[in-house]
Amino acid sequence: MRRMTARPANAHQARLLKLLRDGGPSSRAQLGDRVELSRSKLAVEVDRLLETGLVVADGLAASRGGRRSHNVRLAPSLRFLGVDIGATSVDVAVTNAELEVLGHLTQPMDVREGPVAVFERVLAMAEKLRASGLAEGFDGAGIGVPGPVRFPEGVPVAPPIMPGWDGFPVREALSQELGCPVMVDNDVNLMAMGEQHAGVARSVGDFLCIKIGTGIGCGIVVGGEVHRGTTGSAGDIGHIQAVPDGRPCACGNRGCLEAHFSGAALARDALEAAQQGRSPELAARLEANGRLTAEDVAAAAAAGDPASIDLIRQGGARTGQVIAGLVSFFNPGLVVIGGGVTGLGHTLLAAIRTQVYRQSLPLATGNLPIVLGELGPKAGVIGAARLISDHLFSPA
Amino acid sequence: MRRMTARPANAHQARLLKLLRDGGPSSRAQLGDRVELSRSKLAVEVDRLLETGLVVADGLAASRGGRRSHNVRLAPSLRFLGVDIGATSVDVAVTNAELEVLGHLTQPMDVREGPVAVFERVLAMAEKLRASGLAEGFDGAGIGVPGPVRFPEGVPVAPPIMPGWDGFPVREALSQELGCPVMVDNDVNLMAMGEQHAGVARSVGDFLCIKIGTGIGCGIVVGGEVHRGTTGSAGDIGHIQAVPDGRPCACGNRGCLEAHFSGAALARDALEAAQQGRSPELAARLEANGRLTAEDVAAAAAAGDPASIDLIRQGGARTGQVIAGLVSFFNPGLVVIGGGVTGLGHTLLAAIRTQVYRQSLPLATGNLPIVLGELGPKAGVIGAARLISDHLFSPA
Repeated sequence: MRRMTARPANAHQARLLKLLRDGGPSSRAQLGDRVELSRSKLAVEVDRLLETGLVVADGLAASRGGRRSHNVRLAPSLRFLGVDIGATSVDVAVTNAELEVLGHLTQPMDVREGPVAVFERVLAMAEKLRASGLAEGFDGAGIGVPGPVRFPEGVPVAPPIMPGWDGFPVREALSQELGCPVMVDNDVNLMAMGEQHAGVARSVGDFLCIKIGTGIGCGIVVGGEVHRGTTGSAGDIGHIQAVPDGRPCACGNRGCLEAHFSGAALARDALEAAQQGRSPELAARLEANGRLTAEDVAAAAAAGDPASIDLIRQGGARTGQVIAGLVSFFNPGLVVIGGGVTGLGHTLLAAIRTQVYRQSLPLATGNLPIVLGELGPKAGVIGAARLISDHLFSPA
Repeated sequence: MRRMTARPANAHQARLLKLLRDGGPSSRAQLGDRVELSRSKLAVEVDRLLETGLVVADGLAASRGGRRSHNVRLAPSLRFLGVDIGATSVDVAVTNAELEVLGHLTQPMDVREGPVAVFERVLAMAEKLRASGLAEGFDGAGIGVPGPVRFPEGVPVAPPIMPGWDGFPVREALSQELGCPVMVDNDVNLMAMGEQHAGVARSVGDFLCIKIGTGIGCGIVVGGEVHRGTTGSAGDIGHIQAVPDGRPCACGNRGCLEAHFSGAALARDALEAAQQGRSPELAARLEANGRLTAEDVAAAAAAGDPASIDLIRQGGARTGQVIAGLVSFFNPGLVVIGGGVTGLGHTLLAAIRTQVYRQSLPLATGNLPIVLGELGPKAGVIGAARLISDHLFSPA
């Protein structure tokens, strides 16, 4: 099933491929405006890319005076697979070379089932997308997992919410199964790359992308590149202390942000509120479904339930307090809030903003937008496709 | 007094100049091993640098078999001025092109006197060094100030401990006075660059450099480059909340790290301990000198005074708690502790380490050294010389 055999031969070709990925079909003149190459050298590199089949001619370009040149574009047959494994669900999507999502499947799933069971499911979903006519095969796949990853080996390390995944050779195993190159990264980094490629963080060089799902993590982008840290654990903010001597956390400490606010913590708090008679709304939902989730809190809050609104506000304030410290430290140009818990929407956003704008220094927050992500569950799969395309569109 | 008129004409020449700065005199063969240039192109670029006078021949290189080549080195007459303005003192040094300190003066000084008075002093110190025969003139100067800087304009912005400096055109004014190019940065960034160039952070790509002086700040180095943030305030960690509902801080919030631990906070705490009879040692020092400083606490602790040791331990624990969060977030390869308060030495370091190793995730701390800076007050001036040399050794 391996298809894309060619790789760019040099940095110029790599740059041209990325320009075509990010900007779509372009004339040679347009490409020439974006690279520092003489016209003759540009022509040589474009011709070589045409020979590899990675790039194809695509009709006449609009006239800029003088002879009209041909547009070129990335091969329309190129297909990337984007996989975003969360704690409780998995997203699989197929994109073209411009990273547009052609098909997207979501399924509930428990990451604790372990890598073998999870990847059996992922491969079935990928095959379903392929067989529906979206792809003849995949030229590469990007995979996100909800824990730290030794990059670029593509191996999860000490993932707290993924027992059984520690040291599993995700990259190697999936590369064999899919028959194409694979890159693996932390799910939060992929969300950041997705929002950077096609979402709210386009054109922002330095930003933070906070993902609040079952756990809490942060994608860090510095100068347009994901900062993964010395051991791949950068952005692991769920265990920053938010409440001194607070709740015990699974990590062994007390008061970690994740112990006080995350999808899991919110579900626990909702259960307590329902059982203690503080929320008839949540009690009714518990009665009906036998359990409560962050979505129940979101729905109850939307219906005006004071206890649920309070839970969201408190959680937002604690998250905001941690983010305030990160904003003072990192001085980003944008903060993006995403992940499952963003169903909590503007109540959460307002609580986070209040805390950050109050607590960080004015110089750091003066022009700092704090916004919800634009892409929802597509951010991760687009980021995954971006990850593998960055790899394939680099000199071998 | 302007001397160095030439600048590298291209990126290759810039790289060669930096290699000679960091590695000292080198043979063409040694340079060839470090740059991706054909032998003939390397010869062309080295010859052009020789023509500019930035580089000079320096005797025959050791034989590597075949014809012996000439060593080259940076012009021995090149001189950089490094200035490190702290809250209560100023350091001025002269370096050669390899950033070795040839002469260094320190004077107590209050930054609140304002830029005019401070720079009068700085210029007198620079002139004293020059007149002592260390330099005929300066080819460039790097200036550090204890507050955020709009980089590269070289203008302090909203500096909390520097009233009267907001918007003062430091770069422009000093460039005129000194008659040479000037670059300005935050003092903590310069300390990080100094430790990176000649101190404990050599060869580390991602690290944090915490400066504990009158205030507290953090230099952030990502991939070998200082991260200054969107508005130049990155690393401003003194106002991260360390104690919920803690002491009021000058910034208007409560519980900021700087309100609980810094040179200024330590002096206040020492005064209180002396006045409340909790420390006969500090009381005696107060009696003798009429005031107490962080140095008094250091000396009292070294003499075994339990109250002083306790102050250092508490401060270290609070600093360590904030650093623990930054380590989880940033996943650095090294944490350097420097600044005036490092006179507190190993008691402080032990308290910081305890907190970080206990509170950050094992994956982030497994191989993380937390160490004192090596260069003391020379870190800032070497960093300042490095800053201006980075600028001058880049294509114009």
